[in-house]
Amino acid sequence: MLKKVLLISSILLSVSGLAMAADPSGAETLAQNSMAPIDYVWVLVCGFLVFFMQAGFAMVEAGFCRAKNATNLMAKNALDFIVASLVFMAFGFAFMMGNDLGGFIGTSGWFLHGENYDVGRYLTFFWQLVFAGTAATIVSGAVAERLKFGAYFVYSFIVIAFIYPIFGHWVWGGGWLSQLPFGAGHVDFAGSGVVHTVGGFVALAGAIVLGPRFGKFGKDGKPKAIPGHSITLAALGTFILWFGWFGFNPGSTFSAHQLRIAVVAVNTNMAAAAGGAMAILIVYLKTKKWDVGMMLNGILAGLVAVTAPCAWIEAWAAVVIGLVAGALVVMSVYFWEGRGIDDPVGAVSVHGINGVWGLISVGLFADGTYGLCTTSEPLVRGLFYGGGFDQLIAQVIGAAVAVTWSFVLGFITFKLMDKIIGIRVTPQEEIKGLDIQEHGTPAYPNFYSNNN
Amino acid sequence: MLKKVLLISSILLSVSGLAMAADPSGAETLAQNSMAPIDYVWVLVCGFLVFFMQAGFAMVEAGFCRAKNATNLMAKNALDFIVASLVFMAFGFAFMMGNDLGGFIGTSGWFLHGENYDVGRYLTFFWQLVFAGTAATIVSGAVAERLKFGAYFVYSFIVIAFIYPIFGHWVWGGGWLSQLPFGAGHVDFAGSGVVHTVGGFVALAGAIVLGPRFGKFGKDGKPKAIPGHSITLAALGTFILWFGWFGFNPGSTFSAHQLRIAVVAVNTNMAAAAGGAMAILIVYLKTKKWDVGMMLNGILAGLVAVTAPCAWIEAWAAVVIGLVAGALVVMSVYFWEGRGIDDPVGAVSVHGINGVWGLISVGLFADGTYGLCTTSEPLVRGLFYGGGFDQLIAQVIGAAVAVTWSFVLGFITFKLMDKIIGIRVTPQEEIKGLDIQEHGTPAYPNFYSNNN
Amino acid sequence: MLKKVLLISSILLSVSGLAMAADPSGAETLAQNSMAPIDYVWVLVCGFLVFFMQAGFAMVEAGFCRAKNATNLMAKNALDFIVASLVFMAFGFAFMMGNDLGGFIGTSGWFLHGENYDVGRYLTFFWQLVFAGTAATIVSGAVAERLKFGAYFVYSFIVIAFIYPIFGHWVWGGGWLSQLPFGAGHVDFAGSGVVHTVGGFVALAGAIVLGPRFGKFGKDGKPKAIPGHSITLAALGTFILWFGWFGFNPGSTFSAHQLRIAVVAVNTNMAAAAGGAMAILIVYLKTKKWDVGMMLNGILAGLVAVTAPCAWIEAWAAVVIGLVAGALVVMSVYFWEGRGIDDPVGAVSVHGINGVWGLISVGLFADGTYGLCTTSEPLVRGLFYGGGFDQLIAQVIGAAVAVTWSFVLGFITFKLMDKIIGIRVTPQEEIKGLDIQEHGTPAYPNFYSNNN
Repeated sequence: MLKKVLLISSILLSVSGLAMAADPSGAETLAQNSMAPIDYVWVLVCGFLVFFMQAGFAMVEAGFCRAKNATNLMAKNALDFIVASLVFMAFGFAFMMGNDLGGFIGTSGWFLHGENYDVGRYLTFFWQLVFAGTAATIVSGAVAERLKFGAYFVYSFIVIAFIYPIFGHWVWGGGWLSQLPFGAGHVDFAGSGVVHTVGGFVALAGAIVLGPRFGKFGKDGKPKAIPGHSITLAALGTFILWFGWFGFNPGSTFSAHQLRIAVVAVNTNMAAAAGGAMAILIVYLKTKKWDVGMMLNGILAGLVAVTAPCAWIEAWAAVVIGLVAGALVVMSVYFWEGRGIDDPVGAVSVHGINGVWGLISVGLFADGTYGLCTTSEPLVRGLFYGGGFDQLIAQVIGAAVAVTWSFVLGFITFKLMDKIIGIRVTPQEEIKGLDIQEHGTPAYPNFYSNNN
Repeated sequence: MLKKVLLISSILLSVSGLAMAADPSGAETLAQNSMAPIDYVWVLVCGFLVFFMQAGFAMVEAGFCRAKNATNLMAKNALDFIVASLVFMAFGFAFMMGNDLGGFIGTSGWFLHGENYDVGRYLTFFWQLVFAGTAATIVSGAVAERLKFGAYFVYSFIVIAFIYPIFGHWVWGGGWLSQLPFGAGHVDFAGSGVVHTVGGFVALAGAIVLGPRFGKFGKDGKPKAIPGHSITLAALGTFILWFGWFGFNPGSTFSAHQLRIAVVAVNTNMAAAAGGAMAILIVYLKTKKWDVGMMLNGILAGLVAVTAPCAWIEAWAAVVIGLVAGALVVMSVYFWEGRGIDDPVGAVSVHGINGVWGLISVGLFADGTYGLCTTSEPLVRGLFYGGGFDQLIAQVIGAAVAVTWSFVLGFITFKLMDKIIGIRVTPQEEIKGLDIQEHGTPAYPNFYSNNN
Repeated sequence: MLKKVLLISSILLSVSGLAMAADPSGAETLAQNSMAPIDYVWVLVCGFLVFFMQAGFAMVEAGFCRAKNATNLMAKNALDFIVASLVFMAFGFAFMMGNDLGGFIGTSGWFLHGENYDVGRYLTFFWQLVFAGTAATIVSGAVAERLKFGAYFVYSFIVIAFIYPIFGHWVWGGGWLSQLPFGAGHVDFAGSGVVHTVGGFVALAGAIVLGPRFGKFGKDGKPKAIPGHSITLAALGTFILWFGWFGFNPGSTFSAHQLRIAVVAVNTNMAAAAGGAMAILIVYLKTKKWDVGMMLNGILAGLVAVTAPCAWIEAWAAVVIGLVAGALVVMSVYFWEGRGIDDPVGAVSVHGINGVWGLISVGLFADGTYGLCTTSEPLVRGLFYGGGFDQLIAQVIGAAVAVTWSFVLGFITFKLMDKIIGIRVTPQEEIKGLDIQEHGTPAYPNFYSNNN
């Protein structure tokens, strides 16, 4: 009987799936393009680095939050990539990169099935998946230390199935933003907008709906510092993210035959360095302390900002973009705190605000030496290099759409979740820490610790 | 006098070694194959990632064990790769990949000398070494917190010199298992069996011979949880392992010209995600806690299981294989605990049991679109894709041999060590922790900690 | 008005910079060399790994120092790469790799401007930058736990702008040491001298000028152990460095078409393993303890030593070089301690002393099978392979120059800084730890800790 079932399913599988497969072994693809291996190696290795950013986000979030919630943060950092993998394979990838329907949404590629069983298609999926996972994980920093664990499942699902891939389709899947009649259309080389602005403004929505952590604001409404439990882990996480960003940005050529990858790598690094320098100096001038947390966020801000323009600018422009990002992140952190919004790791400031700045910077600094993702026309040219205001307009439109789309849908998502399942842990649980109640395991049972 | 000695040794070296060298500079190899560089880059970069898994294993083991033994675990995680490097260069590589003798053992390549001084041969050695190091390090998790440090030297030597390379020869060195007259012979793409089953069942032997840690089982024989000292490090380690696995599996094509690497990468990721999802959900249904430790082990279980089939299956099958792995690891952890066997990090369940499942899954899910390590015949085809039971039989035989070989030799090794040198620290030392007595250094001297 | 300024700057930029750009898009470079992509991928990926060593240094230093200074160490490990990035782009790269002036210094390439806007030039910059950053970060370990934070800015600037690039020019930029009329001139494949000896002896100068930490030496002048606060982080850092070194050494071919990269990778690994083995065994024979700190430093010592010879030797020679390095690092640590010099992480012993040993080992073990950085003449041949004393002389000269140059300039730098701005924190601050006074943030506020 079992044997019969197995044989029947065997036949069904052969008929339904594999017959439609395009090039699952890669033999045809290689025959058509003998140089394909180098591009595959480039995209895969860069994709591995982007995946590794999950470890970076986990360490940054843990480091900037308290020991009593560290188990919770580890759980959710693993969970969001798990949900991303499964949901993006099922729906997200099809919505984002499937055949375009009216400039709005993709409509093919469900479950990577049928003709998607193809080496090139799998390669594209892998690349897009690690980006989608990044967008999902950005949110968690802003809602840390008070969100119910079950809610992570739900919002990860919604971000990965709808919010991220649909906006992604508009920019990278041939959708309407990429077709804007200004400059080269709205462009975003590696995702300042698609990944970071979207992630950052869903995060803002979450932080607003949840409200601040217990003790974050005094009775007078003034913010109080809640220091994280491990600066070493936060620094380690930042280094891992910086490292992973060398996959994120240069890999976004999706081809090693674009030797521009060398320029992209340098620009990525310079913006990170400039962002960190500016952030630590600004805070030092204000407080006479060398604030390492802000320096780390300055580095990340520079990386986020340069992500959109990295392929279209010179190194000096990357430095300028990074310096501005480093200033922006400091001002933004104070801005949100001053408005009663509690974002434990600064996710909104790092990713949301600097994602917007990155998109706009393309319209200023793009120097017209490089095209969309090749050396061919149309070249991307901003205001400072004789491109006039066209590209800048396209960038501002895209940024405004990214902010609106992600904040509104994020807000609806968190509000609905709150009504239906409740998203905030009890005050007792929050004060005691989420680890024991939700996970049964403190993160550091061998050490004596306090709950501040 | 010194000069004379030096000149004589100079002549001896030139005569004995270099005259036999094949292509030490790589010039000839390049002349014969102008596309070789991309394959070298692929194999080396993937090999670097596999090496980095040593850091992952170290962090997972430390995180899941107690602070009082953390120095010890760091020492042994560095040590086993050191021993692996030296011993595999001397003996192991020759036994595994040398000229075949009767299908049983390799017999050439000692000390990488003579004609082994060749770029291709060194490349093969590097790749095989990082795999051998993985097998050795798997064992240590199961014997953690109670094994004498000296014993690590001995068993690492035995695993790397004999147990691992001889079995490896049978599967990957042209030995008898690869020649089985069923399907494509016993196949194991990246080592569910060769690396993980072997490592996992040597680990089981070690755990049995050593006996459980003090306090693991109550007087009634019921197991008690001994929580690890750092969930953040355990999570970091798991992310590092997941990252390194993208070298482990896709790199096992040993050629970038196999564009199937894209499929392998996706499958690797999907099984990890599915394994983590299943493990956390099962435990949640049982305990109403989101158990992050079990989720991390579920991720690793999915990775172990997909290691054998990763090149021969579709993404949906990787999800199924991962789901099963996530369930298996939970059941297996309870199973061994219920039988009085103490495996502090779950090494037997993650690597041993899921290594077996990975081997068997090839016989079920291999879809016949891809060959042994190329796009050519023989294609690997399992039961669900019209391959009948042939491949499944070859897989079951190989799995049974892997389990028997590694458990029996591992048992003999640990028993003999116990008789001759004694392998277990004293009860006092165990309770106090191994760090001070064996290493003179607590891992965290600046923090107040307890010994629970 | 703003618009006018923007348009004018736009014109200025176009005229001044881009007109002189060589090949910013990479199209010409690819047209001339269709195999360039694989070399770009190799160099970039290896460069990413070298960058990641920053995380390794940060973890090793933090792990080997006390919890009360961990924030400070994170700050400075991020800071020195930030300063390196900005300063090397502005000056250092031009001094090192610009057009040669009299064998002494480079004179072109400021700010990566004009004709430096070229994919090949950016690639070279990226590679040299990550090396420069390594040299800068080596210093910090020796001056840890007592240097004022402001002083890090200054010495990082001086090392990156002058000390490192000028010496680097002499060896790698076509300068006078590379032109020595002995053997193949002074050679240093991946920087035992240029990076490690230079970094290590600037570190020695810093440690001498600063003086020992409070409590390091008793009233009798005898050294006391000051254990670090996290052996797990130190081990993690060592694994990260070992991993990154696979970029450092093999990537120094600057081309994947040198299949010798496989030999370089194996040699790198074998020296690390041998160094760790020797260091732990020596200390065990002396103290009967398995000293993990010394094993980790032995691994690093082996890596440093093999960095110069890695492309010119066989695997067995790498083992020998590593064994010697493992012994040297132990003796060196005791030597400096015995002379009242306090180097908290052993930077002088690991990088300075073993950098020298690495340079000299080329003159002994280079086997004449490989040239400077290609398979062509001149081949590098040492004493043991019939090369006579010529190469050895070139190596000794280069090593002596490296030591003298870096120690003297380092000493002047630290002495001047001390006179002008003061480089040491107050005794109260040192005892309390640098984190709160300089940075306002303890690294681990949730844990109860002591200040020992």
